[in-house]
Amino acid sequence: MSNENNTRVSLLGLGAMGSALAVAVLDAGYPTTVWNRSPGKTGALVERGAVAAGSVREAVTAADVVIACLYDAASVHETLDPVAEQLAGRTLVNVTTTSPDQSREIAAWAAGHGVEYLDGGIMAIPSMIGRPGSSILYSGSAAVFEQHRPLLDLWGESVYFGEDAGVASLYDLALLSGMYVMYAGFMHGAAMVAPAGVSAGAFAERASAWIAAMTGSLAELAAVIDGGDYTVDGQQSLEFSSLDDIVSASAAQGISTEVIDAVQNLIQRQIDAGYGEQAFPRIIESIKHPA
Amino acid sequence: MSNENNTRVSLLGLGAMGSALAVAVLDAGYPTTVWNRSPGKTGALVERGAVAAGSVREAVTAADVVIACLYDAASVHETLDPVAEQLAGRTLVNVTTTSPDQSREIAAWAAGHGVEYLDGGIMAIPSMIGRPGSSILYSGSAAVFEQHRPLLDLWGESVYFGEDAGVASLYDLALLSGMYVMYAGFMHGAAMVAPAGVSAGAFAERASAWIAAMTGSLAELAAVIDGGDYTVDGQQSLEFSSLDDIVSASAAQGISTEVIDAVQNLIQRQIDAGYGEQAFPRIIESIKHPA
Repeated sequence: MSNENNTRVSLLGLGAMGSALAVAVLDAGYPTTVWNRSPGKTGALVERGAVAAGSVREAVTAADVVIACLYDAASVHETLDPVAEQLAGRTLVNVTTTSPDQSREIAAWAAGHGVEYLDGGIMAIPSMIGRPGSSILYSGSAAVFEQHRPLLDLWGESVYFGEDAGVASLYDLALLSGMYVMYAGFMHGAAMVAPAGVSAGAFAERASAWIAAMTGSLAELAAVIDGGDYTVDGQQSLEFSSLDDIVSASAAQGISTEVIDAVQNLIQRQIDAGYGEQAFPRIIESIKHPA
Repeated sequence: MSNENNTRVSLLGLGAMGSALAVAVLDAGYPTTVWNRSPGKTGALVERGAVAAGSVREAVTAADVVIACLYDAASVHETLDPVAEQLAGRTLVNVTTTSPDQSREIAAWAAGHGVEYLDGGIMAIPSMIGRPGSSILYSGSAAVFEQHRPLLDLWGESVYFGEDAGVASLYDLALLSGMYVMYAGFMHGAAMVAPAGVSAGAFAERASAWIAAMTGSLAELAAVIDGGDYTVDGQQSLEFSSLDDIVSASAAQGISTEVIDAVQNLIQRQIDAGYGEQAFPRIIESIKHPA
């Protein structure tokens, strides 16, 4: 990797993720300044060649590109509002986890102060940064995304979703939805088999392979949704997708059925609306059009 | 594959799955008799070498091992009760989808009639039978499982869970829970990004890779559960796992939050009970101990 533009980078926020981002930038030879609100986080990075800034202002004025990897949207404002004047004319890449509306608000704030703004959502854990499987979702300034691709690509696959600064956060939260709900489904299954003496670890061994294999059918479900015709052949019908057996077996084990009930409700609303013979992917209509 | 025992097999129920099971048995050279309640399902199998039985009684008396792949538990009794006498001394492998309690009831019925019984749950779609990725879960008679492994292994990986005939069904339903809930999580994410102009197909491409990758962390979550200590380091805390951002972003898109709410409720009950600083896998306690 090379820093062809001689871009100077500052990293604000040195938690596990911010530190991992800084290491990747340092190792690629970028002049790098680092700052953290609480002290004691800069030592290892300074040993690797970073300059530790004594203040946010010092970090901002040392850089062409300022990376913010902070706690939340409020901490972005607390950190940057006092240095808005110094940020003017520079580039801000904000990978702090924020809601889509918060991303849009920060983008508007940046525009109001003459700051080029790119919003990012990191789909990786710190140990994955710069390795296969890491991807970072971006939206906001296309010019920033294009100009600084060599920098952004240091952290993982860079994906750009357009000028609306909120879309990367939206996509990030949508993928996290998939992850958290999948985790809950695994937990439900593990709770079902636990009374039969099956350890969570033994169940995970089989369940992780099974669930991973079943993600292979998501493209097919999606094709039905995008096709707009839920009467297609070759797909399991909503009526046949009844989760009654799972609910009654769970109840027989004395465990909560609430996670399964939530999915069953999506199915049942479509059946009640007269679509029982249509294909399973129709449950997305229950989500898109709340009861 | 060879039929070293000269085992004669009959297949009851020739839907897509029953037919796929029959094809695998026929192709391995087993003398195979087939029967289906409604006519017109035997032609292709007879061409492959099967004998079409004119009645259930004929099918049962032609076989050492009777495979039942029927619609539900009730249809198992409707089909087999009239031929209980002929089944005596033979082996019944029932891969019909049933609840754990129904499996146990059928096992007791079989024992009462001198029938060796093995219950099976098929973790595959018909096109996967006999191919990599197909697995069949069994419980019930260990003797049947051991003696007929060459036959059972024709369909996929054979996994045995012990003498309790209900456990294979329980495990089957637990894995299906994981699948259905994962599907619902994907649908939620797809519904979130749809208003931003992202097709379900485009989302699926990224989400399937992401969710599959995240199944890699299930073993780690399970280790925390099995360890019995949720105060471990290196795991995200329940407080940090708040899904508030997902809920509010979903509400802002005008979509239902019910699937996310179900997961959030599992988290919240543990936080309310004072465990907010403990690790995320603790949500299984909310499932194991209903509110």
